[in-house]
Amino acid sequence: MAERWATLGIDLHLEPTGPGLRRGLTDALREAVRSGRLAPGTRLPSSRALAADLGIARNTVADAYADLVAEGWLTARQGSGTRVATGAPATPARQREPGTVPPAGTAVRTHARARGRPAYDLRPGTPDLASFPRAEWLRAARRALAAAPYHALDYGDPRGRPELRAALAGYLSRARGVRADPERIVVCAGFAHALRLLGTVLRARGARTVAVESYGLDVHRDLLTDAGLATTPLPFDALGTDPAGLSGADAVLLTPAHQFPMGVPLHRDRRTAVLDRARRTGALVLEDDYDGEFRYDRQPVGALQGLDPDRVAYLGTASKSLAPGLRLAWAVLPRDLAGEVAAAKGGIDTCGALDQLTLAEFLTSGAYDRHVRAARLRYRRRRDALVAAVAARAPQARITGIAAGLHVLLRLPPGSEQSVVQAANWRGLALHGLARYRNPAARVEPLDALVVGYGTPPDHAWTGALDALCAALPG
Amino acid sequence: MAERWATLGIDLHLEPTGPGLRRGLTDALREAVRSGRLAPGTRLPSSRALAADLGIARNTVADAYADLVAEGWLTARQGSGTRVATGAPATPARQREPGTVPPAGTAVRTHARARGRPAYDLRPGTPDLASFPRAEWLRAARRALAAAPYHALDYGDPRGRPELRAALAGYLSRARGVRADPERIVVCAGFAHALRLLGTVLRARGARTVAVESYGLDVHRDLLTDAGLATTPLPFDALGTDPAGLSGADAVLLTPAHQFPMGVPLHRDRRTAVLDRARRTGALVLEDDYDGEFRYDRQPVGALQGLDPDRVAYLGTASKSLAPGLRLAWAVLPRDLAGEVAAAKGGIDTCGALDQLTLAEFLTSGAYDRHVRAARLRYRRRRDALVAAVAARAPQARITGIAAGLHVLLRLPPGSEQSVVQAANWRGLALHGLARYRNPAARVEPLDALVVGYGTPPDHAWTGALDALCAALPG
Repeated sequence: MAERWATLGIDLHLEPTGPGLRRGLTDALREAVRSGRLAPGTRLPSSRALAADLGIARNTVADAYADLVAEGWLTARQGSGTRVATGAPATPARQREPGTVPPAGTAVRTHARARGRPAYDLRPGTPDLASFPRAEWLRAARRALAAAPYHALDYGDPRGRPELRAALAGYLSRARGVRADPERIVVCAGFAHALRLLGTVLRARGARTVAVESYGLDVHRDLLTDAGLATTPLPFDALGTDPAGLSGADAVLLTPAHQFPMGVPLHRDRRTAVLDRARRTGALVLEDDYDGEFRYDRQPVGALQGLDPDRVAYLGTASKSLAPGLRLAWAVLPRDLAGEVAAAKGGIDTCGALDQLTLAEFLTSGAYDRHVRAARLRYRRRRDALVAAVAARAPQARITGIAAGLHVLLRLPPGSEQSVVQAANWRGLALHGLARYRNPAARVEPLDALVVGYGTPPDHAWTGALDALCAALPG
Repeated sequence: MAERWATLGIDLHLEPTGPGLRRGLTDALREAVRSGRLAPGTRLPSSRALAADLGIARNTVADAYADLVAEGWLTARQGSGTRVATGAPATPARQREPGTVPPAGTAVRTHARARGRPAYDLRPGTPDLASFPRAEWLRAARRALAAAPYHALDYGDPRGRPELRAALAGYLSRARGVRADPERIVVCAGFAHALRLLGTVLRARGARTVAVESYGLDVHRDLLTDAGLATTPLPFDALGTDPAGLSGADAVLLTPAHQFPMGVPLHRDRRTAVLDRARRTGALVLEDDYDGEFRYDRQPVGALQGLDPDRVAYLGTASKSLAPGLRLAWAVLPRDLAGEVAAAKGGIDTCGALDQLTLAEFLTSGAYDRHVRAARLRYRRRRDALVAAVAARAPQARITGIAAGLHVLLRLPPGSEQSVVQAANWRGLALHGLARYRNPAARVEPLDALVVGYGTPPDHAWTGALDALCAALPG
């Protein structure tokens, strides 16, 4: 039954604007009754449960239910909840008998496709946005705005609000071992913004080449290329990225705590080797610490920056721990770079002051820690379910990189990656193969694998997504 | 008395972070008593009044008062309010007798200077930030966040949230006569961001030169120069900017509704001439509508864009109507440009989703209109007070550009601009002369004048700022 509601939940995910949300929900429920997907007599989830499921306000659901009761599609009775009316206005028709459950995902997929979003999504790179702590965030916003002096709303320091830089310095030092002085922090509108600024500054300093990992995001390489820099891939082996090829590069972009997408931490010998080589060649290390908050089975891997703050530019983000929509990231920079990166922002702050003040309050009040702890538990449960389901239903597949982060690498039999991704797509499951993350210039053996972002789906779609994944895997 | 509190208010403006605000306020009040600036027996403003004056939460003031009562610096008695204790812990000393009022602004100035902000500020470019509608904004944020689907917190459309673009299209069409299709709107992190993006796109299209006004902001010209474009000034006369010199330019940057800083609208013949010439030469008009909301004595001047949406890029901002700290502006672009400008943002939205959703809700709920109406009344009263005070106390000065906006031009006797600005600075009043807004390449007669931003001070500092201005003017 839970799964059925999950399906219902997804089917109702329209692209609603504020006032259109209630109408969209009403239309979708009405259509579900009319088409027979919701059989007469079916009990609907409580407005509270469906609202939580959909990540919307309870009132919106209650209002939609009330509209449909008024229209005769639903009935509401004390003690019996809200049910589909037995004599609903328009009798169901179409392809199916009323009361039968459609094949999992069928209607959903069609519907979602029409709106450009997949029914299920296990692509990496996004946390579960339905669990964004809306109420806590609003409370922090209220406190932050009450405490802020009026000039906090003026044009700001291009490095970002001092309240946020101070809060980040404390947090990063405590949680990630970063040596963070607020003067050396620059708040940016996301990791991509920070990388673009750093690329511009490095190029202006005369840099020509940035070494990158054999596996990574093409958009990051493109940002560097757009800044006028060439990228060159470093070798990758069982210990992680090998800095042997670093000579000749002016900088190196790494994900040391949790290689993206391979999921392994940089081996401790390699950590030392990277810094040694960078010191010898004068290269700057760009440390992408995108999901450093999420560790499950092992000791946290501290930031590389803590070992050499004048050689490493540390880059963190709220996109994985909270939501990409906040557009908030931070760079902790060697002293001489901080001013140049701030100047490259155009001399004024580019991030909204209110969100910055709110995040500062969120950090200093402990709400951030509480949120990360809760999210860590939730993601860990999902990861355990994923590992168990794959072991049971697709024993040929092998999962690696499970100790941290919001994604795993699911290794497949040779030659099967593309067909598995296709099979998943046909089931309404958006999925990424490893191929798209392989730097085309890298000399690494092709490896068939999926990069499974188990953090992505909202709770109500998680089980369905996992089922669709297992069904697509070779048995 | 009112002025004395105003002085107190300014003196208390520290740079507090959230939890530090109460302590900062307590320290400042204690110091004011210790130094004798607050004489024994002096009645303090109510916590409500001081909180409003300082733009902070009432509880913060009440808590600070309570701390100081507990410490014996203040006394609180039902019916008699909060007063400075007669036997305060440390007896006042320093240079002044206890109980005397310091020369207006003296202590304030020193204090503020040490913290890098002037006691009084009549520089143009910022609205009264203390009147930012905090409570209404938070209410809108709560409604917006309750209504938003969870995927509104994901990486977004580089043009900005659809809710905000739809709301802006409605508002700009109604209030500014802009022909605005949401598909052609790109939300940006402030006007400077929008201008920088447009500069980049124009340069990539092969543009070389942008015509600018004889008077304007150097930072805007610099943004264009940074994008690789040359700027060339257009003549300026009694009808405003003369587009005669437009040939040869690929684009022209104008403030047609309210020339900045001269304060006049572009004459209607010139409006037509600009568009005629732009059509003939293929130039793009960049319309900077920075304060289009604020009209007092005349019919609103509609946006030029309404006359030729395929020839004009309209640029608006929340920086004057709400606050620069929001970092929200919007470009309404010719169809072919919208995609290119969005791509120049790096393919992802650069503005926080929550602020965008909140502004959308603020616009559609009518809160924006209410706020602008109230602000317009307040600024109009200030403008009337300014005109009256200058007429009474500095009859030699002549004020122009009073019909709209948040600043006026105050014409001075020839040769006196620099000395007046200096005299004002010595009184703790930050003030800008016209000279800094004159394009060095422009062939215009030097004109001695002040650009007085009467919108800038918070209410509690307005009277003091006006007094300081009048005192600095030649009598």
